[in-house]
Amino acid sequence: MAPAQRGGTGTNQEAVRRHNLGTLLRHVHDLGEISRAELTGRMGLNRSTIAGLVTELDSLGLIEHALPATGRRTAGRPSAGVRIRDDGPYVVAVDLGVDKAEVARVGLGGKVWERAGAPIPQETEAWQVGATVAALIRQVVAVSPADAPLIGIGIAVPALVRRNDGLVRHAPNLGWHDVSFGSIVLAALSLDVPIALGNDADLGALAEHRRGAAVGMDDVIYISGNVGVGAGVITNGVRLEGAAGYAGEVGHLCFDPDGERCHCGSNGCWETVVGAHAIAEAIRCPADQVARLGEVLEDVTVPLRELRPVARDLGRGLAAVVNAFNPRVVILGGYFRPLFRLMGTEVTSGLAERALRPAYDSVRLALPGLGSDSVLLGAAEMAMEPVFVDPVASLGTAVTDAPARIAG
Amino acid sequence: MAPAQRGGTGTNQEAVRRHNLGTLLRHVHDLGEISRAELTGRMGLNRSTIAGLVTELDSLGLIEHALPATGRRTAGRPSAGVRIRDDGPYVVAVDLGVDKAEVARVGLGGKVWERAGAPIPQETEAWQVGATVAALIRQVVAVSPADAPLIGIGIAVPALVRRNDGLVRHAPNLGWHDVSFGSIVLAALSLDVPIALGNDADLGALAEHRRGAAVGMDDVIYISGNVGVGAGVITNGVRLEGAAGYAGEVGHLCFDPDGERCHCGSNGCWETVVGAHAIAEAIRCPADQVARLGEVLEDVTVPLRELRPVARDLGRGLAAVVNAFNPRVVILGGYFRPLFRLMGTEVTSGLAERALRPAYDSVRLALPGLGSDSVLLGAAEMAMEPVFVDPVASLGTAVTDAPARIAG
Repeated sequence: MAPAQRGGTGTNQEAVRRHNLGTLLRHVHDLGEISRAELTGRMGLNRSTIAGLVTELDSLGLIEHALPATGRRTAGRPSAGVRIRDDGPYVVAVDLGVDKAEVARVGLGGKVWERAGAPIPQETEAWQVGATVAALIRQVVAVSPADAPLIGIGIAVPALVRRNDGLVRHAPNLGWHDVSFGSIVLAALSLDVPIALGNDADLGALAEHRRGAAVGMDDVIYISGNVGVGAGVITNGVRLEGAAGYAGEVGHLCFDPDGERCHCGSNGCWETVVGAHAIAEAIRCPADQVARLGEVLEDVTVPLRELRPVARDLGRGLAAVVNAFNPRVVILGGYFRPLFRLMGTEVTSGLAERALRPAYDSVRLALPGLGSDSVLLGAAEMAMEPVFVDPVASLGTAVTDAPARIAG
Repeated sequence: MAPAQRGGTGTNQEAVRRHNLGTLLRHVHDLGEISRAELTGRMGLNRSTIAGLVTELDSLGLIEHALPATGRRTAGRPSAGVRIRDDGPYVVAVDLGVDKAEVARVGLGGKVWERAGAPIPQETEAWQVGATVAALIRQVVAVSPADAPLIGIGIAVPALVRRNDGLVRHAPNLGWHDVSFGSIVLAALSLDVPIALGNDADLGALAEHRRGAAVGMDDVIYISGNVGVGAGVITNGVRLEGAAGYAGEVGHLCFDPDGERCHCGSNGCWETVVGAHAIAEAIRCPADQVARLGEVLEDVTVPLRELRPVARDLGRGLAAVVNAFNPRVVILGGYFRPLFRLMGTEVTSGLAERALRPAYDSVRLALPGLGSDSVLLGAAEMAMEPVFVDPVASLGTAVTDAPARIAG
């Protein structure tokens, strides 16, 4: 995004410089390490400008100098490089599911430091969930370096999140309507720090697109297969948001009009036949153990006959996604990851059964490049976004004594 | 789109000039008439540059001078205006349906001159359909002014059209696979002129977005409800194409897994319950009269009980579209236009039944602003596209003696 062109010349030059600082930082963040020559090429700026930007980002503790890269052979003298400082400023990422919450402290470059998790009991009120999440945040922040700035918090929720303000408009499987969950968490932490909320599948797509299985691809869908099912859609390289940010709610596409009641109020939504509860039922995992379904499935190493129908229905439903969006790749996240790993043949044949041939021919089903961390890392990327827009301003709003400030 | 920045300075300046010529022409084409002051503001160019461009476009026969606009009061002296020349260069637009073809000669500004149409008998081969279309094109071109240049031909097809080359990959209801329909039509005409193919719903969306019910809106869906059903999706102001151009095939979303066989090979696709044959059956219109269904429905002026189930199913299926894409407006084209006009309450309640509330709250169902011509005018817009990229080059490839050249 270009900086604002209005205002006096001085302000404008300052805006350009901050924009360039953020853009350079994003390149280093995306790649981990990059030579100055590559930065010069990618950013279209001359070497002395790059050198100035590097010096400033170094002094801000965001990047550090690296030896000339030896991996890639190019003509001429190898160019000195820069490397992301993954032990400096950080964010806290939250992957809030229907039955559990995972929290991590994440440094620049997507480095995961501490993690913490907890189950979310059914019928829990939003403020109680907020208290649980705040406690997990405290855990991971408590052990962070005392002088590392906390840039912000990013929370992934299985919900329709309003783009303007991050309000959780509707989380069918949590039973939430119009919940300002970000404010609840900040209140529980007694902390004033930038906080951002996003839909879980959208954030899974963001992370897989930036550093997972879909780097460099333009038409990408990430499906989050948990208690609920949703899609994060990237089309022509850009997130498909829709009018208010709610696009991608494919879990509520009608799969069988005579099917089971869904938490959304309709019948026979796709997620009622392929969501966590349907998978658990297929393998006779008790309902109160659904939060452990991931571990159960990870332990399975051979295809299970019992999973065939749900795998087939996963593929059939994916056909709707493929017919509607014509993606190049569909990444299967959440419980769909082990399901696809175990039952890939059934999933693919279900897809072939209902997808239009040309759309089927142009798509590939794939496992997440980031394992089970796509959504969590997407929440981290969202929380880091301000530092790539304006590092100076972002560090200005960061909390520098977070461990002391939020100590229980 | 900015002109290419490479090449020598002379070439570059020429490219910039042609880009500006095309851009100015598009403004006049979109609005019909516009003052020079408005052009100066919209294009960010000074008055003398605008004057030069106007003079050149005038000499090319694309626009003409207009009196100062009196309709709008602005401060200062009224600015002289320019008006599109709708009687000069033209395109031929083809709306090819499963059971009929409509062809029109369309001037700049979207002015429809002559029209012609013919039924397409069932089980017709692609080359026979091509011959029928070519005959209709001859009819409308035969009566065009002898000196008016034919810029190109645009054809809307109810099919998955490959973006790269316009190949018809799959037209389920025509039974076509990998048909190079553009070449077939040109061969039948013995004419070498630019020809472009597009999906019918995509072109309906294009025309409604440019000069219909969705001008200035960013998240728009046009649904073509004919023998088949498809969606043209505009998201964030840009057409959603997908990896190869096939996005929007919502007619083949599963509506009832136990439903009727669809021409695509699956069962219970949405179009089997709301397509032309389902509507015809509901009102006991004989199967061989389906091509006249539009006229039959236009004659109905009061809601019909017989149409309630199909209207309800239209709304229920639209819920999938709304949940998946979160559009601001859904425009109901084809036979859905009279169906929505007659049975709006049932359609809306079917939508409310299955759409997620926040997505439902942000969408509006609407009739096409262009009546039954959305797809036809979208085909015209597609064919005109080159003249807005580079008017000089486009006129260079135009056919200037078309009536004589293609006279049977």
